[in-house]
Amino acid sequence: MSPTEGIRPLRQLPTRRLEALVDGVFAIAITLLVLEIRVPIVDSARGGDLAHALLDQWPSYVAYTITFFVVGAYWINHHRMFYLLRGVDHTFLILNIFCLMAIAIIPFPNAVVAEYLRDPAMRGVAAAVYGLAMFTLAVMFIVTFWYASLKGLFREGVDTAKVRKVLRSYAVGPVIYLLGIVLSGWAPLAVLIVYFLMPLGYLFEGPVVEIDEGYLGAGS
Amino acid sequence: MSPTEGIRPLRQLPTRRLEALVDGVFAIAITLLVLEIRVPIVDSARGGDLAHALLDQWPSYVAYTITFFVVGAYWINHHRMFYLLRGVDHTFLILNIFCLMAIAIIPFPNAVVAEYLRDPAMRGVAAAVYGLAMFTLAVMFIVTFWYASLKGLFREGVDTAKVRKVLRSYAVGPVIYLLGIVLSGWAPLAVLIVYFLMPLGYLFEGPVVEIDEGYLGAGS
Amino acid sequence: MSPTEGIRPLRQLPTRRLEALVDGVFAIAITLLVLEIRVPIVDSARGGDLAHALLDQWPSYVAYTITFFVVGAYWINHHRMFYLLRGVDHTFLILNIFCLMAIAIIPFPNAVVAEYLRDPAMRGVAAAVYGLAMFTLAVMFIVTFWYASLKGLFREGVDTAKVRKVLRSYAVGPVIYLLGIVLSGWAPLAVLIVYFLMPLGYLFEGPVVEIDEGYLGAGS
Amino acid sequence: MSPTEGIRPLRQLPTRRLEALVDGVFAIAITLLVLEIRVPIVDSARGGDLAHALLDQWPSYVAYTITFFVVGAYWINHHRMFYLLRGVDHTFLILNIFCLMAIAIIPFPNAVVAEYLRDPAMRGVAAAVYGLAMFTLAVMFIVTFWYASLKGLFREGVDTAKVRKVLRSYAVGPVIYLLGIVLSGWAPLAVLIVYFLMPLGYLFEGPVVEIDEGYLGAGS
Repeated sequence: MSPTEGIRPLRQLPTRRLEALVDGVFAIAITLLVLEIRVPIVDSARGGDLAHALLDQWPSYVAYTITFFVVGAYWINHHRMFYLLRGVDHTFLILNIFCLMAIAIIPFPNAVVAEYLRDPAMRGVAAAVYGLAMFTLAVMFIVTFWYASLKGLFREGVDTAKVRKVLRSYAVGPVIYLLGIVLSGWAPLAVLIVYFLMPLGYLFEGPVVEIDEGYLGAGS
Repeated sequence: MSPTEGIRPLRQLPTRRLEALVDGVFAIAITLLVLEIRVPIVDSARGGDLAHALLDQWPSYVAYTITFFVVGAYWINHHRMFYLLRGVDHTFLILNIFCLMAIAIIPFPNAVVAEYLRDPAMRGVAAAVYGLAMFTLAVMFIVTFWYASLKGLFREGVDTAKVRKVLRSYAVGPVIYLLGIVLSGWAPLAVLIVYFLMPLGYLFEGPVVEIDEGYLGAGS
Repeated sequence: MSPTEGIRPLRQLPTRRLEALVDGVFAIAITLLVLEIRVPIVDSARGGDLAHALLDQWPSYVAYTITFFVVGAYWINHHRMFYLLRGVDHTFLILNIFCLMAIAIIPFPNAVVAEYLRDPAMRGVAAAVYGLAMFTLAVMFIVTFWYASLKGLFREGVDTAKVRKVLRSYAVGPVIYLLGIVLSGWAPLAVLIVYFLMPLGYLFEGPVVEIDEGYLGAGS
Repeated sequence: MSPTEGIRPLRQLPTRRLEALVDGVFAIAITLLVLEIRVPIVDSARGGDLAHALLDQWPSYVAYTITFFVVGAYWINHHRMFYLLRGVDHTFLILNIFCLMAIAIIPFPNAVVAEYLRDPAMRGVAAAVYGLAMFTLAVMFIVTFWYASLKGLFREGVDTAKVRKVLRSYAVGPVIYLLGIVLSGWAPLAVLIVYFLMPLGYLFEGPVVEIDEGYLGAGS
């Protein structure tokens, strides 16, 4: 059986809608992060201090910034990979739903970390939960597009070996998240700091799969 | 009167926007599911245990996973059916709004099940509510596209008899949900287990209506 | 000055994005309606009855269904009118933002009605709030597209007189809402029943502005 | 190195998806503003007055109206600037994520102002928080598109000097917000009034970068 049999080409099942669902879930998940940042209830009659109360919830701002940035970077990567696809089959659609499930749950571990970041007794569990969510997201992402490479779902001009190399480079993430989960019982603060610094890597572009311009000129 | 009279062809009223509304509602409904998963309030000074509190709300995670997957699978089916349409009329738009209403309410029965899954006295009612919501969604979906088949809203290359066969195969779902509602007073746990296993069927592609490539090549 | 000067044609400032914003706000506003339907807190140990508690919040289900349907119907009307546009200018964009503001606030009056529907002492105020929100939405909608007709923003094939006739027919809505607000202090229940029955009118298509097919064949 | 090296032209990485993410975040952020407006809990048996309670939360309505309008106006500006782009590079994508971060957090400062607008002791801090959020958003917007002008990301027909002139004109906003932050400790009410009147400027179109029609006719 040829690797392209049973694939619904992108032109047939318009990917526009799959992209719309994916972009929608990403956009909503990152925007819902703001719901975790609550307006502090301060009573001025009792000498409450709004400025202090606002500064006191700094973990919420830190978590918001880091998590928003990570999910935003995932969106960039999903965008890039997805663009290389020529078509999708049913299994890809199913795998992609699990990817979205891993994206849409992110506000939850984000809130757990924001809530328990400062509590030394709880910090380890919070770090493990955050690490587990990020690990799952990273693995689902790699599995989904690795499947695409196995089934020949990429466009003609795309070098599948290069795609796999890029996907393999993404595997550094889940390995660190997994290590972090294991170590979160011993050094939770160190784990959280590593987790929070990891997104800095996204500031650099990293490996990119180029497509032959000619093909695109004809096909897009 | 010919069955195609009074239809606004897809090219005229751009379906792009109908798709955008549909995809938006789907994306938001599944992403709002996360709001049901709350950060447990644990006080370490009183010997609270965050890990235990997090594991204790396992019904929320189960409900999230199952419901997200079901709605995601519905999106795939909606996507496929909608793609076969040549045009929509006013009644189709109205029926589609009722479909969206059935999608957008899903976070509510999902939260009811997550909240009362473990309470033997409440479980039956929760199962009935979940079943009713899923039954309504399935029926609205079938009715909407059955209407399209009655009014000849499908593209030229599409075999309407095949479409109806596929829609009839979807009817297995609501029948089981209905049976579950009836039985939820006697064996609520069994009903919920069946409800939760049903989505496994979506892992397989099921019957698909193929379109003549030639027509698509010319028309899309 | 010709009425078309200063207009950014649709092809130049792609309306795709204006549509995306509009569709996004509509989709989110209707999906947020579900957040008003809360899971009742029932304690079975104290003889609580989940079925009764769920049925007891029937005003929430009624409000959800009616309001969802009204906003959905507004989307259909916005879609149809917007499709007739040839281009937009700055004032249209600003008016459209006020339209979106009127759409996005709908979950609030919806929740007010759901909360106070059964309280005879409060019902009048709730009806007035709901009527005011619906009145504002209807007026903003008509003003926005009336402005478009004044500035010649419609496509060449569109009969502006016909558009205004359609817009005038929409004016029945705000007049009834306004009357309802005035009467809500005397007969709140009657007003709410009228408000809730009004959307039935949307089940029928109503007047539609047709566009010359030939122009569309060439221009879309 | 030529300024256009390393740029992924818009046709290659389809901007449709970047726009979808941006529009999604804007749409969600403005629609989430409604969640801040809560249904007042009034007990008629204890002589509660719903009308009074609703009017009493006027700061929420004022904040909703102003903030919605500001974010809507930002969307117009983003739309206009983005449309001038020929392509994006990795750094632009990253800067754009920070823009979205500044948009998505807006419901938080909006809620702070709505909550503490009437409390003379807290008003200053609330004004400073609101000003800081608006300042950050304005600066991120200008930085993102200024970067685009430095890297030659604009289309061929676009006059970069004109773009920068427009961006410079936008700089009035952050300067006023910054002044407001400084003065919020002394005259918080005056600062808030200025902040709330500033959006009136958006009612006028302001400077616009025109593109050569010919180029667009060929290239879009």
